[in-house]
Amino acid sequence: MRVIGIDPGLRNLGWGVIDVTGNRMTHVANGVCHSLGDDLAQRLLSLHTQLSEVIATYRPVAAAVEQTFVNKDGAGTLKLGQARGIAMLVPAQAGIPVGEYAPNKIKKTVVGVGHADKIQVAHMVKMQMPGIEIAGPDAADALAIAICHAHHGGASALSVAVAKARA
Amino acid sequence: MRVIGIDPGLRNLGWGVIDVTGNRMTHVANGVCHSLGDDLAQRLLSLHTQLSEVIATYRPVAAAVEQTFVNKDGAGTLKLGQARGIAMLVPAQAGIPVGEYAPNKIKKTVVGVGHADKIQVAHMVKMQMPGIEIAGPDAADALAIAICHAHHGGASALSVAVAKARA
Repeated sequence: MRVIGIDPGLRNLGWGVIDVTGNRMTHVANGVCHSLGDDLAQRLLSLHTQLSEVIATYRPVAAAVEQTFVNKDGAGTLKLGQARGIAMLVPAQAGIPVGEYAPNKIKKTVVGVGHADKIQVAHMVKMQMPGIEIAGPDAADALAIAICHAHHGGASALSVAVAKARA
Repeated sequence: MRVIGIDPGLRNLGWGVIDVTGNRMTHVANGVCHSLGDDLAQRLLSLHTQLSEVIATYRPVAAAVEQTFVNKDGAGTLKLGQARGIAMLVPAQAGIPVGEYAPNKIKKTVVGVGHADKIQVAHMVKMQMPGIEIAGPDAADALAIAICHAHHGGASALSVAVAKARA
């Protein structure tokens, strides 16, 4: 099963693709979509175009997106929400089920504790897939999300299927 | 000039299309896109599909979206942000410049005061375009956004052009 993990952000949107066969995980590719400019609509369009190309190139059959941490910075939450809307839309347009994972669950799965920092996450991702080049902390987070989905994907895929059946 | 106003929301996304010729405004159509189900990705996809159909049908040349009010309800702001991402993306995909207006500016333009409620907005929209049927308060807000763009669109379109030139 090929899985794409997506770490949503308006300026930098990280992605990571892995292959999962039984207990074995193999790195396929990772990267970061950058959006430039001041015009919000054009930035969202740019993220949409780049992420659509990633999915068309690597053809994952499952996607996982981090559940955004909601804080007291309303403007920041709104920006992240807009990017997250694109991150959820693109795989849905490709007919791929989209799982969501809380940051704590991702960290607990990959690092073993729920309060790990970005450096620890990147370190553990490299430990699990030795020798790979990672395009930066957002790409490392995205790979961690994909790894999390590989561990918990069964239950999540089921909940998506149930939600679809209800809709 | 044909303008679409969009009032973003995850459950109900209002839209309103008007024609603007000099000082004259004519109602074209209005409605609400509803998204159903529990699966966020599918709901965003459903909004994207419906809004894309509206734009393909009415072919506006300009779009305007309300600048979302950011409050202390982080989860609500995130939901709205995700829907707003779709509301900005769809016209951008059609090559249409997207203006943004603060709620106060929209109300001040349409009602004359910045703190008007939804009932006053709907009333003044009906006053300006007599005899039209409005699909509900979200569609009335969307028409108000389109009317606001008709009044202020020149400056906004310019700022979009400048932003694009910078990008």
